[in-house]
Amino acid sequence: MSNINIKTIKIVKPDNDFTVNVIIGQTHFIKSVEDIHEALVNAVPNIKFGLAFCEASGVKLIRYSSTDKDMEKLAVNNAKLINAGHVFIIFLKNTFPINVLNNIKNTPEVCRIFCATANPLYVIIAENEFGRGVLGVIDGQSIKKIENIKAKKDRYTLLRKIGYKF
Amino acid sequence: MSNINIKTIKIVKPDNDFTVNVIIGQTHFIKSVEDIHEALVNAVPNIKFGLAFCEASGVKLIRYSSTDKDMEKLAVNNAKLINAGHVFIIFLKNTFPINVLNNIKNTPEVCRIFCATANPLYVIIAENEFGRGVLGVIDGQSIKKIENIKAKKDRYTLLRKIGYKF
Amino acid sequence: MSNINIKTIKIVKPDNDFTVNVIIGQTHFIKSVEDIHEALVNAVPNIKFGLAFCEASGVKLIRYSSTDKDMEKLAVNNAKLINAGHVFIIFLKNTFPINVLNNIKNTPEVCRIFCATANPLYVIIAENEFGRGVLGVIDGQSIKKIENIKAKKDRYTLLRKIGYKF
Amino acid sequence: MSNINIKTIKIVKPDNDFTVNVIIGQTHFIKSVEDIHEALVNAVPNIKFGLAFCEASGVKLIRYSSTDKDMEKLAVNNAKLINAGHVFIIFLKNTFPINVLNNIKNTPEVCRIFCATANPLYVIIAENEFGRGVLGVIDGQSIKKIENIKAKKDRYTLLRKIGYKF
Amino acid sequence: MSNINIKTIKIVKPDNDFTVNVIIGQTHFIKSVEDIHEALVNAVPNIKFGLAFCEASGVKLIRYSSTDKDMEKLAVNNAKLINAGHVFIIFLKNTFPINVLNNIKNTPEVCRIFCATANPLYVIIAENEFGRGVLGVIDGQSIKKIENIKAKKDRYTLLRKIGYKF
Amino acid sequence: MSNINIKTIKIVKPDNDFTVNVIIGQTHFIKSVEDIHEALVNAVPNIKFGLAFCEASGVKLIRYSSTDKDMEKLAVNNAKLINAGHVFIIFLKNTFPINVLNNIKNTPEVCRIFCATANPLYVIIAENEFGRGVLGVIDGQSIKKIENIKAKKDRYTLLRKIGYKF
Repeated sequence: MSNINIKTIKIVKPDNDFTVNVIIGQTHFIKSVEDIHEALVNAVPNIKFGLAFCEASGVKLIRYSSTDKDMEKLAVNNAKLINAGHVFIIFLKNTFPINVLNNIKNTPEVCRIFCATANPLYVIIAENEFGRGVLGVIDGQSIKKIENIKAKKDRYTLLRKIGYKF
Repeated sequence: MSNINIKTIKIVKPDNDFTVNVIIGQTHFIKSVEDIHEALVNAVPNIKFGLAFCEASGVKLIRYSSTDKDMEKLAVNNAKLINAGHVFIIFLKNTFPINVLNNIKNTPEVCRIFCATANPLYVIIAENEFGRGVLGVIDGQSIKKIENIKAKKDRYTLLRKIGYKF
Repeated sequence: MSNINIKTIKIVKPDNDFTVNVIIGQTHFIKSVEDIHEALVNAVPNIKFGLAFCEASGVKLIRYSSTDKDMEKLAVNNAKLINAGHVFIIFLKNTFPINVLNNIKNTPEVCRIFCATANPLYVIIAENEFGRGVLGVIDGQSIKKIENIKAKKDRYTLLRKIGYKF
Repeated sequence: MSNINIKTIKIVKPDNDFTVNVIIGQTHFIKSVEDIHEALVNAVPNIKFGLAFCEASGVKLIRYSSTDKDMEKLAVNNAKLINAGHVFIIFLKNTFPINVLNNIKNTPEVCRIFCATANPLYVIIAENEFGRGVLGVIDGQSIKKIENIKAKKDRYTLLRKIGYKF
Repeated sequence: MSNINIKTIKIVKPDNDFTVNVIIGQTHFIKSVEDIHEALVNAVPNIKFGLAFCEASGVKLIRYSSTDKDMEKLAVNNAKLINAGHVFIIFLKNTFPINVLNNIKNTPEVCRIFCATANPLYVIIAENEFGRGVLGVIDGQSIKKIENIKAKKDRYTLLRKIGYKF
Repeated sequence: MSNINIKTIKIVKPDNDFTVNVIIGQTHFIKSVEDIHEALVNAVPNIKFGLAFCEASGVKLIRYSSTDKDMEKLAVNNAKLINAGHVFIIFLKNTFPINVLNNIKNTPEVCRIFCATANPLYVIIAENEFGRGVLGVIDGQSIKKIENIKAKKDRYTLLRKIGYKF
């Protein structure tokens, strides 16, 4: 059994800017770069995103693709920080995780999605002498209390005001 | 890199009562509360469930919804124990994970499902000064040995007796 | 709160042999053995695979099924190493994760897929006095640098040479 | 080009009894009988249904399966009336199409669903000297006018009263 | 067996304007109006659409919903022309069928999609003394010949120029 | 309202050769050719298929793609016979509809699948002065009687002998 270190990295992004969202997941195979790119352009017209993927064998490169240079830079820079085999990271501008998550989940190489968020985000990493892997995330802050009737109404009203529910 | 503590919490529920099941997952956005509620009522007529979700920003509340007060109480109480951003927990009575898991997996905000079980359940939590996240679960007990031909037959027979397979 | 140990196990398999792939996931209920078996034979004609599942309650056995004895042995032996409740492991020969992952993700009991890979693979395990759970994986090696234009072209060409993309 | 006759058959069932619903679809292969049966029992605990399928080659039988003798009889009798190759028909009691349609659509042999309804139902059949096929359905009655604000409110209220929407 | 008439109606819309697309399908139950509306707003930010549905029992109204009055008018007017039980019609502006079709197919009440097109469109209707149903569509014009190498290249180039493929 | 003719064409193929299967469906947009091709190669290693699609506007060509020249010829020749806007046809050798149907149903442009079969197959066509559309199919022969206990057992045994069910 090999030795393992557990580390935390903070994703570097404009935190709490709800127009920039990040999705992190586990996939297999470099074909994911083209397939996730296509899943995203199929999802939303004129979508602005950046995508980076940590290849885990052979030449071991960060592979990337995008429709927006700012989002691409965020994706590549944070992929370097995560540096975990077969992990991908997507940054979205002008669109939201709800618009793309099912397309990504149904991409044939994708194993799982760790998170989708605009919150400050910490990624928990396991590292041994061979490589690194994602164990989980801290996505936003701890809770303060349980919603009361007024807070329920506010939630109800918000979802209708932004047009998602009737 | 921030400091991280790893903790374990035990889900408080009627363990090994196969009529009460728990599902834990990661999602994004408070809209999940209404959407997962609807996914569950779409799945099974007269379903009895409770759902709680840890909001991770803004007013940072436990958001909840249910069709059964007992299940709601279990969901809210265990969400308080987990207290991890964008994590949700569902308790089911009179229905089983197999009846609802695909509906939940296809809900557009849902990222991943950690587990679905009636076993005693421990949740592994990462905590830093900012918040908390789920790393994984211990779902039931360790194995004792490999199934032999008799145990294979018992498994085969059980699935047919309960009507799931031919 | 119970005490927790974090361990790493190395999956024992022919590493970097791209004709043998492993998929690890979390499910619930022994019915998964027959359902994942059927999902796999539905996916690819004459598929060669082995599947093992850690039952987490009752008689607590490794349950298994296969169409190939070599793959079955790999699955059972590695399930013994992982020994985590409700976790399954699949070994594939003559077929690839891309051919089967969506079928497995859509199997009604399956919660999540941890990884799908031919790389050397380490599984991070949480263990307490009650049982064990998978926290994550280290799937292959760390990255060396960011792909340049030549590497992008090589990736593009490879996917077309093997017939996956136009 | 062969000669074709177009016929209409009326499905024989308790019309406008909203506790009995019928689903008709096109599939391929007799394996559909077991797979649709399993999709239905996976969907809803204690589901009451009958299923019949028109085998289109070999011994050319109506194949059937059920968890309820009344629903089985309805399915078999109406399959005889339809008598179209690779067509299946499901009758549901104590559950509703919304609870099972996605499970059926995702069954690997299923091609398409023609309708799901409790309305009086006519099936349009094409028949030549070789066999028969379904062209479409008349599912309920013609419209009378466009909904006004009062009717919109009634619709809104109904969906909330029966618990499907918030 | 009742008498049947087969009729053709032409969908009234700006034909060959590729910025306006129409989708026609079969569903069950008035809940579809809210659920398809939500599936569409989940798919694309600021989506402009109109949706109309032919209720087939009870008060028998055209039910409708939209985010755009022009698209709503097209949907309602063409639903009147089609007038077939449990059939819905969607008009899309500023977005394309590729962005929304999977969301609609996965809506739990939706049975099938007849077509998705910007072409001139004829709908084939079966009508008896009780009601009407859709048998199929004529979606665009007849083919002239088989693509040659130059036409293959043009197709290849077009898909890359508009950003859908690499 | 335009005039409509209803015609039947017989698909020209090796009938009742269960190693050659045909799938016919409705899609939109020439991008379907590449996307369905990729869905098929993602499904089964070394899959042998031919695919043809009736473009319905612009240059109005039969578009096609394949991994096998015999299957391609069957697809193109039968697409010429069908000649209906936005309709596609796939011929499969060495693989079966069950292996690929869900991948095709989930392709983002695909509207519906008419049939998947090795039976003799007739396609019912509606034709007006503008174009042609598929109304339905006659997939195999009429039924002779209802299965009895012996036939049920034969069906049960067959599915287990060919390895699809336990």
